[in-house]
Amino acid sequence: MSVRLHAAEGGFDIFAGDVLVIRHRADAPALFVGAGSPRVDMYRGNYFLEDKLAERVALREAAIDGDRVILSAGGRALLALTVRDGALACEALDPALNRLWLSTVGEAGERFWGGGEQLSYVDMAGRRFPMWTSEPGIGRDKSTLMTFQCDRDHRSGGDYWNTNYPQPTYLSSRRYALHVDTTAYSCFDFRDADAPEIEVWEIPARIELFAADRFASLVGQLSTRFGRQPQLPAWAFSGAILGLKDGTRSFERMEKIIAAGAEVTGLWCEDWIGLRVTSFGKRLFWDWKANDARYPNLKQKIAELNDRGIRFMGYVNPYLAIDGTQYVEAAEAGYLALKLDADEPYIVDFGEFDCGIVDFTNPAAAEWFADRVIGREMLDIGLSGWMADFGEYLPTDVRLHDGSDGMLAHNAWPTLWAEVNARAVASRSKTGDAVFFMRAGFTGVGAHCPLLWAGDQCVDFSRHDGIGTVIRAALSSGLVGNAYHHSDLGGYTSLYDNVRTPELLMRWSELSAFSPVMRSHEGNRPDSNLQLDGDDAVLAHFVAMTKVHAALAPYVAHLCEEAAATGLPLQRALFLDYEDDAGCWGVETQFAYGRDLIVAPVIEAGAERWHAYLPAGAEWRHLWSGEAFVGGATAEVAAPIGQPPVFYRSDSAFAALFASIGAA
Amino acid sequence: MSVRLHAAEGGFDIFAGDVLVIRHRADAPALFVGAGSPRVDMYRGNYFLEDKLAERVALREAAIDGDRVILSAGGRALLALTVRDGALACEALDPALNRLWLSTVGEAGERFWGGGEQLSYVDMAGRRFPMWTSEPGIGRDKSTLMTFQCDRDHRSGGDYWNTNYPQPTYLSSRRYALHVDTTAYSCFDFRDADAPEIEVWEIPARIELFAADRFASLVGQLSTRFGRQPQLPAWAFSGAILGLKDGTRSFERMEKIIAAGAEVTGLWCEDWIGLRVTSFGKRLFWDWKANDARYPNLKQKIAELNDRGIRFMGYVNPYLAIDGTQYVEAAEAGYLALKLDADEPYIVDFGEFDCGIVDFTNPAAAEWFADRVIGREMLDIGLSGWMADFGEYLPTDVRLHDGSDGMLAHNAWPTLWAEVNARAVASRSKTGDAVFFMRAGFTGVGAHCPLLWAGDQCVDFSRHDGIGTVIRAALSSGLVGNAYHHSDLGGYTSLYDNVRTPELLMRWSELSAFSPVMRSHEGNRPDSNLQLDGDDAVLAHFVAMTKVHAALAPYVAHLCEEAAATGLPLQRALFLDYEDDAGCWGVETQFAYGRDLIVAPVIEAGAERWHAYLPAGAEWRHLWSGEAFVGGATAEVAAPIGQPPVFYRSDSAFAALFASIGAA
Repeated sequence: MSVRLHAAEGGFDIFAGDVLVIRHRADAPALFVGAGSPRVDMYRGNYFLEDKLAERVALREAAIDGDRVILSAGGRALLALTVRDGALACEALDPALNRLWLSTVGEAGERFWGGGEQLSYVDMAGRRFPMWTSEPGIGRDKSTLMTFQCDRDHRSGGDYWNTNYPQPTYLSSRRYALHVDTTAYSCFDFRDADAPEIEVWEIPARIELFAADRFASLVGQLSTRFGRQPQLPAWAFSGAILGLKDGTRSFERMEKIIAAGAEVTGLWCEDWIGLRVTSFGKRLFWDWKANDARYPNLKQKIAELNDRGIRFMGYVNPYLAIDGTQYVEAAEAGYLALKLDADEPYIVDFGEFDCGIVDFTNPAAAEWFADRVIGREMLDIGLSGWMADFGEYLPTDVRLHDGSDGMLAHNAWPTLWAEVNARAVASRSKTGDAVFFMRAGFTGVGAHCPLLWAGDQCVDFSRHDGIGTVIRAALSSGLVGNAYHHSDLGGYTSLYDNVRTPELLMRWSELSAFSPVMRSHEGNRPDSNLQLDGDDAVLAHFVAMTKVHAALAPYVAHLCEEAAATGLPLQRALFLDYEDDAGCWGVETQFAYGRDLIVAPVIEAGAERWHAYLPAGAEWRHLWSGEAFVGGATAEVAAPIGQPPVFYRSDSAFAALFASIGAA
Repeated sequence: MSVRLHAAEGGFDIFAGDVLVIRHRADAPALFVGAGSPRVDMYRGNYFLEDKLAERVALREAAIDGDRVILSAGGRALLALTVRDGALACEALDPALNRLWLSTVGEAGERFWGGGEQLSYVDMAGRRFPMWTSEPGIGRDKSTLMTFQCDRDHRSGGDYWNTNYPQPTYLSSRRYALHVDTTAYSCFDFRDADAPEIEVWEIPARIELFAADRFASLVGQLSTRFGRQPQLPAWAFSGAILGLKDGTRSFERMEKIIAAGAEVTGLWCEDWIGLRVTSFGKRLFWDWKANDARYPNLKQKIAELNDRGIRFMGYVNPYLAIDGTQYVEAAEAGYLALKLDADEPYIVDFGEFDCGIVDFTNPAAAEWFADRVIGREMLDIGLSGWMADFGEYLPTDVRLHDGSDGMLAHNAWPTLWAEVNARAVASRSKTGDAVFFMRAGFTGVGAHCPLLWAGDQCVDFSRHDGIGTVIRAALSSGLVGNAYHHSDLGGYTSLYDNVRTPELLMRWSELSAFSPVMRSHEGNRPDSNLQLDGDDAVLAHFVAMTKVHAALAPYVAHLCEEAAATGLPLQRALFLDYEDDAGCWGVETQFAYGRDLIVAPVIEAGAERWHAYLPAGAEWRHLWSGEAFVGGATAEVAAPIGQPPVFYRSDSAFAALFASIGAA
């Protein structure tokens, strides 16, 4: 469906399909331009941005000529909008302009979904969402002691809108989507239902509009626009990937877990490059090559694992520790980003150690990192994947090879980083086989990154930084076109004596079993936190969940094919398949795992029973009891440890598979 | 010295005396106008304001005609400025305009003092100060647990700029002062040294400028402009005023304290109207008449006290509890502020009880409160003063008799409230004898209110809400023309198990002894906090300090005369008397008590020694040891409990008096 411009008395209207998105009149202008300069304050990836606004001018005068509008204020032409190719191409007519505000048409009760990967709210209505990739915060809720402590001690508490992966894209429940084609800071302000406002810290190239009769079609369009992932390889979803970072002991511990009966298809050792101990916990040595002391003969060991159907995964990020050899190599070649005011590498403080930034705007540097680092040091010794960490920290006062402004490069960085990883994988013909996963993202990350991970949750059930945020992250990122999502089984961040309980580990195993990738993590402080192999009951439960996960593989393979064909995410909002049931629209703590499964993970401590909304138009069976429920209502079921609330369509082609899982 | 307008190439300059205050050019405009609508969120006097900005237009075009400038944007004339009577009269040429921004000329190192009564910073350079009367916050420092708990539980933590008494007035170290004649929300943004910006949520009537060769002269001008207090009566500064709220036991406890040797000239019983118990602590019953059950025969009792030279003080505020009789009387007479959307009284939640608001914009209501309530129920039974509490809570969505907008009435309220109290006092010919004290304030409060009090400090030494904030409050409020200031001896707010230590009570006695009024307070939770008469050592120390306080009376009387003549505050910034010593300009934790005493109260726990900066150009003697120090340097002295760090000029006319106090 097309985007159309209609002249009107005193202004104009812009429609996406049949939906009025922009209504501009002289006495109620929708477009404003202006100028400002940012105040930027950053501490270890936590950004504090504010605009020092010089001007904001209403563009009351609109002259329409075919598909083009010239907008003026006081007789001065300031902005040209051209409707073409499903978008409003924007052109500043005064080079001093660097701010744009757009008020869209809003309706009471309208929902606004997306915004990239949002951890606290899938529906952004009623709130304001800055779009700036950063640390997501620890606690993320100013009413919690955890957030207070992190704010006080590390400026890192964060808030509901902080995310590693923002994206200036939303889907409206009025069945259109809007995307701002910019890497500048932007902000979606949905506080006023009748006047949503988008703010952009540049005159963006385009404001893209999408319309469709069905939400699923909108998601498909976005997936096409932003890039559709290759299908996830079977090894990645057919068994668990064990995250262990214990040097050679990792192998022994894996064997014990396999001996306990777990289905294991991968071993992820992020410490393959060696450790560095800091006050935050054990961290990794950021010089990207196998550490022979910690993992002797790793290449041979990987080959042996592969022979048993077990892949080996590692870790990499776009920084180079200044005490590593690659830093020296990159610095000598001129591959590092520089300080603005000196011809020397820009150094980033990562908390008790310093790093240089590989300058991915330099094609030679990107190629060096893809081929020399990831290619030679990782893929060539047999790694089948890795956590491609970070990407959110690019300082704004940095000098880059291509001369781009740090304020525009910052948000672009995660996608550049994804591209370097994808290029490395493609260089070894491993696309669709090697799997790297990222927490950082921005527009277009899905074109390169085959798998998202939900970042560094706290090891708890907290509302804004615990296990439950993983569900919202999967839903929101899926809606803007990312098919594959997963999380750190067990959570990551353990601070201020907040440690994993057996219950948390077991509930997270249940959530992960119904995710495309079931990957465990030891967390930032492995020694003071319970591990999967640290308790017999926890291990037995994990083993059972890996069996569920492995048994689901035929169904997941089907979902992967569907994702490749349609762009629909695997874990998805209920309203994508059940749009006509408005009861599904507000559901944010459950997901449809494809059309045939409704998964409502237990995300509170101490729960014995649980509620799940089941979509209308189908009969649903509780996976464990086989009890049937008519859709269109909330079902309550027993939810003991080991029986995550999951329901399948009675008429599913996979009903027999599901029934066998429940009966196992 | 005059305010002058000079035409310049592409704009104009405005001088206060010889100081360039505003530099306006087409390519660097100093003036902006626009339109916005406020988002107002309020919880029990804690306000959360934000502007929903529609437009901000740079006024690049200036047409000058004599003393008048017409400022335009895009050929549209939007603002007229007329220089007259030492001010810029402002006139909006478009009625839709309701925002003004003014950038003043700033210099590196420039100091900006004032802003009303500021509790955290006297010099506002480098920070942003909204001007909106409100609760000042509890904790007032986002890094403290107290602030976190109050924010979490009551939205009441506050921040450094929250104050009961803001005032859009500053003094610049470039020897000029600026005042915005508005009661709208405004904001002084001094974050950028080279471009201070003032924001006003209306087009203000005037922007007033003051210039003088000396800071003291500037303060005098401001005192003349905003109103000079009557001299404080001798009874108020010749002995301590005991704050007790224990019903008739208050009299017994007073006798015990007097018997211990304390110099007492007043008894303040805020519970004279009866108590109400809430979770915050014991509160008062807001129906303004003597409570016969709690204070039988109060009129006669007061007369007996007066015969002994002891005055009696009470408590009142501008609200009426809905379960009191005066509420009914006021409601029936139509004296209460109404809801916007219904013909019924606006009810304010004060935390477990509800109140109506007496509408002081109704002359009949103001007269009723002054004569019928304060006059008849308080002055006529012999009260010599009271805490005139509150004034900061006026909601913005209220309907007032005079039709004024709540956004403009809110800041005006404290001064209206002061005026009602002053009118009551004048009606009984008690001006200059009866003393009421207020924490709320705004421009002009000093014309009516004879004495400020620094609000409700926490019972601790915390940087932003403890004992030390009293000093900054005295300094800042004094600089904008308020001569008399004091505080709750012992602090007020005790929450979350934060209670008074003996040390705190004793250090506060020392601070209060060197204040015009030495008044104690039992705090919000008297029963769980140490009181002056609850510990022998604390009582003995208090007795000694009341003797110091009483002995200072001749000097304080001299200061009161000086204040009446010049407008100089009693407790004042060192640079008012010692302007040529730049070392005095940044001193915020000491005060000059008149020209001849330097007082540096101990405001940290556990201190045994203390530092004080002593102004150049004089020799100073330590009050207790008699040791002499040459001014222009920092002196270090022993500061045991009982010997607050105080220094007097060797050549003072009161040197013998001071020496006798130190030797006593």
